[in-house]
Amino acid sequence: MTYYVDAEEHPATDRQGVAQLPPWGETRVVGKPLSRVDAYERVTGSAVYTLDLTLPDMLHAAIVRCPHAHARVTRVDTSRAERMPGVRAVLTGASPGADIPWHIGRQGPTSRLFDTHCRYAGEEVAAVAAETPHQAWDATRAVAVEYEVLPFVVDVDAAVRPDAPQVHEGGNRLGAPRVSERGDVRAGFAQADVVVEGTYRTSCELHTTMETYVSVVRWDGSRLTVWDSTQGVFATRAGLARILDLPLSSVRVICPYMGGGFGSKFEVGKHTIIAALLARMTGQPVKAAVLREESFLSQGNRPANVIRLRAGAKRDGTLTALEGTFTGVVGAYPTGGTAPFQVEALYRCPNVRVEASDVYVNAGRGCAFRAPGFPPCNWALEQLMDELAGKLGMDPVDLRLKNLTTVLQSQGNMPFTSMGLGECLTRGAEAFGWRAARERPPAVGHVVRGVGMAAGMWGYQGEPRSTVILKLYADSSVNLNMGASDIGTGTKTVMAMVVAEELGVPLERIQIEHADTATTQYAPVSGGSQTVLVNAPAVRAAAADVKRQILEIAAAEMQCQVGDLVLADGKVARADGSGEARPVSALRGLQERDVLVGVGRRHPHPEGKIALPFAAQFAEVEVNTRTGEVRVVRLVAAHDSGRVMNLKTYENQVFGGMTMGVGFALMEQRVLDPQTGKMANANWHDYKIPTAMDVPLEQTCVPVDPHDTECNTTGAKGLGEPATIPTAAAIANAVHHAIGVRVTEAPITPMQVLQLLAARREGE
Amino acid sequence: MTYYVDAEEHPATDRQGVAQLPPWGETRVVGKPLSRVDAYERVTGSAVYTLDLTLPDMLHAAIVRCPHAHARVTRVDTSRAERMPGVRAVLTGASPGADIPWHIGRQGPTSRLFDTHCRYAGEEVAAVAAETPHQAWDATRAVAVEYEVLPFVVDVDAAVRPDAPQVHEGGNRLGAPRVSERGDVRAGFAQADVVVEGTYRTSCELHTTMETYVSVVRWDGSRLTVWDSTQGVFATRAGLARILDLPLSSVRVICPYMGGGFGSKFEVGKHTIIAALLARMTGQPVKAAVLREESFLSQGNRPANVIRLRAGAKRDGTLTALEGTFTGVVGAYPTGGTAPFQVEALYRCPNVRVEASDVYVNAGRGCAFRAPGFPPCNWALEQLMDELAGKLGMDPVDLRLKNLTTVLQSQGNMPFTSMGLGECLTRGAEAFGWRAARERPPAVGHVVRGVGMAAGMWGYQGEPRSTVILKLYADSSVNLNMGASDIGTGTKTVMAMVVAEELGVPLERIQIEHADTATTQYAPVSGGSQTVLVNAPAVRAAAADVKRQILEIAAAEMQCQVGDLVLADGKVARADGSGEARPVSALRGLQERDVLVGVGRRHPHPEGKIALPFAAQFAEVEVNTRTGEVRVVRLVAAHDSGRVMNLKTYENQVFGGMTMGVGFALMEQRVLDPQTGKMANANWHDYKIPTAMDVPLEQTCVPVDPHDTECNTTGAKGLGEPATIPTAAAIANAVHHAIGVRVTEAPITPMQVLQLLAARREGE
Repeated sequence: MTYYVDAEEHPATDRQGVAQLPPWGETRVVGKPLSRVDAYERVTGSAVYTLDLTLPDMLHAAIVRCPHAHARVTRVDTSRAERMPGVRAVLTGASPGADIPWHIGRQGPTSRLFDTHCRYAGEEVAAVAAETPHQAWDATRAVAVEYEVLPFVVDVDAAVRPDAPQVHEGGNRLGAPRVSERGDVRAGFAQADVVVEGTYRTSCELHTTMETYVSVVRWDGSRLTVWDSTQGVFATRAGLARILDLPLSSVRVICPYMGGGFGSKFEVGKHTIIAALLARMTGQPVKAAVLREESFLSQGNRPANVIRLRAGAKRDGTLTALEGTFTGVVGAYPTGGTAPFQVEALYRCPNVRVEASDVYVNAGRGCAFRAPGFPPCNWALEQLMDELAGKLGMDPVDLRLKNLTTVLQSQGNMPFTSMGLGECLTRGAEAFGWRAARERPPAVGHVVRGVGMAAGMWGYQGEPRSTVILKLYADSSVNLNMGASDIGTGTKTVMAMVVAEELGVPLERIQIEHADTATTQYAPVSGGSQTVLVNAPAVRAAAADVKRQILEIAAAEMQCQVGDLVLADGKVARADGSGEARPVSALRGLQERDVLVGVGRRHPHPEGKIALPFAAQFAEVEVNTRTGEVRVVRLVAAHDSGRVMNLKTYENQVFGGMTMGVGFALMEQRVLDPQTGKMANANWHDYKIPTAMDVPLEQTCVPVDPHDTECNTTGAKGLGEPATIPTAAAIANAVHHAIGVRVTEAPITPMQVLQLLAARREGE
Repeated sequence: MTYYVDAEEHPATDRQGVAQLPPWGETRVVGKPLSRVDAYERVTGSAVYTLDLTLPDMLHAAIVRCPHAHARVTRVDTSRAERMPGVRAVLTGASPGADIPWHIGRQGPTSRLFDTHCRYAGEEVAAVAAETPHQAWDATRAVAVEYEVLPFVVDVDAAVRPDAPQVHEGGNRLGAPRVSERGDVRAGFAQADVVVEGTYRTSCELHTTMETYVSVVRWDGSRLTVWDSTQGVFATRAGLARILDLPLSSVRVICPYMGGGFGSKFEVGKHTIIAALLARMTGQPVKAAVLREESFLSQGNRPANVIRLRAGAKRDGTLTALEGTFTGVVGAYPTGGTAPFQVEALYRCPNVRVEASDVYVNAGRGCAFRAPGFPPCNWALEQLMDELAGKLGMDPVDLRLKNLTTVLQSQGNMPFTSMGLGECLTRGAEAFGWRAARERPPAVGHVVRGVGMAAGMWGYQGEPRSTVILKLYADSSVNLNMGASDIGTGTKTVMAMVVAEELGVPLERIQIEHADTATTQYAPVSGGSQTVLVNAPAVRAAAADVKRQILEIAAAEMQCQVGDLVLADGKVARADGSGEARPVSALRGLQERDVLVGVGRRHPHPEGKIALPFAAQFAEVEVNTRTGEVRVVRLVAAHDSGRVMNLKTYENQVFGGMTMGVGFALMEQRVLDPQTGKMANANWHDYKIPTAMDVPLEQTCVPVDPHDTECNTTGAKGLGEPATIPTAAAIANAVHHAIGVRVTEAPITPMQVLQLLAARREGE
């Protein structure tokens, strides 16, 4: 079996010839639980994040934000602010070159960089550059803005009423619902022996990245250099070049270290443009750092969802119909929203209909957030499956095993390159001790335990393009040059391991240069669980290109054929073991060239097969029926993300993803004050995310490797997002198992639990 | 006619296939007098030189230097220095890891980083790192060093006496004289009708770079990043990796802007190693900036030369024999020295013998300095030729025209790829009005005018290797990635022009990343007048590689053959003019790839032909016979450096080189106090270099282009060094023409002129 994709016979010429790299046999480096190559820098604090960066003569920007949920700016008077100490520039929409159209999202309305129609509390109105951050903040308060305050709407049900205040002209619905249907749902339900349905609600969550949103901007003549906390330097470059009308070559975007993005750092931010304009006005570098509170208001979020679902099944558990209505609450601008994909694709079902629509309210906009739309959909689907299992009297694991599919039904039954959900379910259940735990007798007392599970899948295949350059130096040490950002997930480490695997060079002799548009080639944003599968094959192809050059040089010097030679441990030897092995660094041809340059690209699957990851997670919870508190006691995650590239970072991804799932299930929610339309908990005290005390000590990761030889030349399918998709539903199902109450609205707050328990008692 | 060298058919695979790039026809960009691409950064001060760089928590190094011309260090007590305010570390040879062997030069003795045998006043003894530069300097004075003071020698004639103090064990001569001979010199002189001879002396000159010697060093774990004011980041990397025993990939050397090197920044400096050790001791970044005074003492110089020359010629001017004895005064370590090349190679002569040797004295070491050894040799040879012309009654220009050669006689008569000296002589003489000026009647009064000329050549062909990557982005803007440093000569501008020429992309859409070992490939040091000829062909090859990819993509999309298409003004059109031209950025294939990557290398001439530049310069001087002052009134330089890449930077190179020649001729000399052995003028007040008032307003540059199609694919042969080689001799010859006195010892000080005039009067 050979791989079909990813390496070119003739890489630098880009003739798209697809070479065949054989799959790795037993690996020597890939898959091992290795520490990160930048661990030292990260733990000692020597790693310079954008937030840490200081340039000589650098000014600090601060942004004036609309304090009203909905208002029109009628006047901006900057005269007092301009006279404040240390202030070098005040920027408004009336400043030269600042009246910039602002497109958010692919469709929908355009606004301006500083729009006079402010659609949420926190929208940008003006900005200041001063010598110190505090001077800048002081000066923002001295900018006198007059507003015409408008009626607002922050509730999704209110927003769709005909008389609701309009966030944008034309009403609060983003066009007609998107309908997708296959088979005959009506007939499907008619065939069903059992039908279940429910309405599920999820909350708006904030990304709460460790490093907030920050850019440092410097102009050299008409050239712009931007250090940006971004998930993709090339995306920021493209945005800046478009907005500021510059050639791509004139914009350099750099991101050496990044403190978390989770989807909120895909696009160029307003603060970045503001910094660029202020730097141009003042002739000095400008840092624009968005404060934590501002980040809660304006930097995106995971949209709340309202999901109605209905499922029909035969008595043996075979699904006959699935039907859903999805509503996403996108906030003031049309990004983010809802994603019914799993209803259409996770289980084999001939008759499916989903209807999805999104609604504006006067609040900060949604955007991509770790598996955009998937955790809400999973919250609904996997609780409904749990209901269905209960109604059928089936074990929830068995119900899912009954309905597996190896093709993507929503795309003409295109086959998956591999599908390991069945193995995730069985191996996960085994590792969890599912059968025994499920049948454990009910607890006595007010603290009761329960177990639940959920399956999930991720459904994104992003742009496949990445071009990597690998350089082998005269002493056989290596430099890997790639565009991808390491957004904290260990990308650099995995890529170094790919090089080490292919070339037999130890990790400490591999240096990585990355995430700099001026010195690397191209990589898509690090996101969508695509970073490894887009870049690792390109890295492997580049390494293979260098390896070929080494062997060609060695064959000439050792007077034999390339095919007679093998490269291992930094030496070239005859495959038959004859003669002496020659160190790569001893090859004259390498010394003469000083450097060998390999170019690698990644190509998509030639037949269009679909490579997607799958997961099954299992949770055990303790519910305190007196206080309503839910404590997650134990989590097991079985993942088919293809090959494990680094067992340590793999496990960390899974544990981190589940931690985020715990937050989704139990605590995270943006609270909008219905009186004012403002966010009531825009800080880390009131907006709760899980801490070490909130996640179970006992977390187990069960990697399932289907040995996918078709997805790409590394066999990896992506892990970042699947890790967080099924967690919350598994917890909700465990709560149901514990106390018999189904909490359909996330998060499962103590108040909700107590109210539902009280309601059930009343109903009894 | 096609070029033989420089482009590979298959660049990334490095199969050494040599493609043939046709010579440029009429150029549209190359050759034009364009301003530098980094002019804005340079004139506004936004360009960050290493000396400008500040890192957070950066410490400052200062070096304790030996105050004696010759001494042995018997004790170093750092205890008081360690307690000084702000001091973080004191480094001596006894510090862990600091007892490092120090090789200076290719052969000869080894010393240590901190050698207990100090061989000149200024040698490194210890170093301090402190929070501020002033604290560091204060602390150096608190390092108590005990010396055993030794007898010293600073005079070259004294140094070779048997009883002289020995700078190194084994005597002050660096081995046996290097003798080179062809033909039969004795027979040659026997055939001569006229014989002339003379002894010429030149002074030790200092490089006086605008930016002194400075490194900023940061460790991240075992990875070292060094910002260094260097002429070659890869050379500094190699030195650091060797000395500190690190893989090449673990050493990153960066030099974004450089304030002059002139040969003194080829190798890794002691201050750089010291900074690296101090940074490792303290865990903080360290800047080591060598002060101006220290730079005069310890950073190298142009060695003084003593040259005896003898020439014989037929009555018609045909040279029959040349004989010379060259002595270079290298200082305390064996770098620099003397170079008789021009005696062997500038003129056709069948019988030549040269003997060269170098001598140690107790003074700062020599090193490469703009055309190492050539200006002293030229000073002697071209004054002797002037003498010979006088004795033959020939015009000096005619004498030189009589003795031209098109082959390198000292290397088996290997042909030059081109030889434009004849044209330099005739066109230079014409531009200068030589014949008329030469025959102008003698001046009346005490200020007398004279004209003189000299020819010259440069004789270095360095390592030909350079690997360049060129990236074309989706909007058809370009990024050029090359290892070469732009040491102030305009390298970036010329390389951008090559890209613009080849791809039809305007300069403002080309961004350059350079001189960073982590993000570029490989380039030799920028020096030896090789920067353009080594790198420009690699750049052209990379651009041609990108162009080929563009045309291949376009041919597929426009349904025609690659050969049917031409690329001009950023558009692809059919060569026959049919159909519509398509902008490169509109090619779908480019959009799909996001970036096209071209790789270019430079290869040496396959037949080993020699590509060297030639020059003839003409000077007019005014000599004040009462004060002895010499004023250069007018300079004309005619240069065959092959193709003019940028007329503006070309002229600037010539004017700058001649200015340095004025300094050599009239003012520059290190003065060593015979009482103490210390340098008496280690500052810019006492060590004179030409200022605007010392160079003539009237300087003319006459580029001579022999349309060399063999030297490389650009036709350029190198200009940096030839520009300074003949200037001083032309001035000395003009002085002789003015006052009839031959000043054989550079510089021509007023005191010398008056003494020689007085001696002549006495002799009359």
